[in-house]
This record gives sequence, structure tokens and C-alpha cells, in this order.
Amino acid sequence: MYKAGLHILCEIHSTAQDKTSEVKKWHTFMQKNIQKYDLVQVGESLHQFDGGGYTAVHCLTESHIAIHTWPEYNLVTFDVFLCNYLKDNHILVERIAAEIVTFFSGEIIQQHNIKR
Amino acid sequence: MYKAGLHILCEIHSTAQDKTSEVKKWHTFMQKNIQKYDLVQVGESLHQFDGGGYTAVHCLTESHIAIHTWPEYNLVTFDVFLCNYLKDNHILVERIAAEIVTFFSGEIIQQHNIKR
Repeated sequence: MYKAGLHILCEIHSTAQDKTSEVKKWHTFMQKNIQKYDLVQVGESLHQFDGGGYTAVHCLTESHIAIHTWPEYNLVTFDVFLCNYLKDNHILVERIAAEIVTFFSGEIIQQHNIKR
Repeated sequence: MYKAGLHILCEIHSTAQDKTSEVKKWHTFMQKNIQKYDLVQVGESLHQFDGGGYTAVHCLTESHIAIHTWPEYNLVTFDVFLCNYLKDNHILVERIAAEIVTFFSGEIIQQHNIKR
């Protein structure tokens, strides 16, 4: 039987312009987290916009993590979705979301936790 | 000022095993849609699981489309998120979500529409 996973969608305010502008910093941070939390990445796509923010998606065996940054608005939107195929990942989703907020020294504007 | 976009998260039941199992069919379908709706893809990541479903993410200048299939459960979870940076994409998000449901001959189990 399929066990629904947790998907956190979050919008944060961040004035950490270096982190909202440079996809390389995000990449280093996320690779460390993927290793730290024993996640398995099966693909990724990163795109740095000219003179703006970036978009990055990490495909995991457990689902995906996605981020879009808008340094011009001090805004970040991100998603952490881990299914519960092999184990219950609810707490892990919350931990990774918290790590991302801390990375950006962010203030949460809006957050949705969806079981799916 | 940032204009919030629409993010549709949807879970569907689908017995179209060829479409839930073969990432190539999804890829062809999604590339046609990206062209049809004048979206701009800036990256993608597709992964076919051994003996199972697939995960695919398409990064767009307008945000992203993500999908995870579970043929063993006749289940598909997908996300369509388009921001409103250059124009209002709300109707387009709904159209693409509907196209995906039709592609899989799917029945909607759960859907969330989130403005973010």
C-alpha cells in the first residue's frame, strides 16, 4: 500500500543576497544536506538567471526538492517532498525545510504542509 | 512587486501502465506541451526507476513541473507551478494540469491549488 509522504511548500523573506543570487552556494549547501540525511539524488537541474536569481531542482529516489529565488524581491520559494516508500520521512522533510530557512537567514511568509 | 503564482499539486489514479512506466512517453508529451503553451524550459531531469515508475522535473523560466509515477499503485503525483512574473499564468497552470490528467486517463484523488 502507498504511504503518503509530506510535501512542504514554503515562501521566505531573505536579505542574504549572496545566497539568493548564487546558485553555486545553494548547490554546495544542498549536496551537504543530501549526504547528511542519507538521501539519494538521481538527477538535478540548476539554472542561474542573468542578473537575477536561480532555479534548482534535485530529483531524489524519495521525490524532490525545488527552489526558486527572487533576490530583487528578497524572496525564496521552495518545496521539499519526500515520499514514505521505504521509511517514514515526515520529520526529515521538516528538518530539511528548517535547514533551508536557516541557510537563507529567512523569515517564513507562508508555509503549507501537504500529505500526498 | 512580486505577483504570486499558482501551484497545483495533484494525485491521480491511472491504470495507463505504459504511460506511468515509460518516462520517454512522458518526455514526448511534456515537450509538446511546453512548445504548445510557449513555456521556456531551462533544464530538466528525468529518471527511470528499475522495474518501476519514473521521476521527472522540468525547470522553466516560469518555475517548474514535476512528476512521480508509481505504476505498482496505479498512482501519479504531479506539480505544476508557474509564477506570474511576466504575465498571469493561473489559467495556464489549470490547463496544463488538465492535460496531464487526460494524458494518464486519470481520476483525481486529491488536488491542492496554492497561491504562492
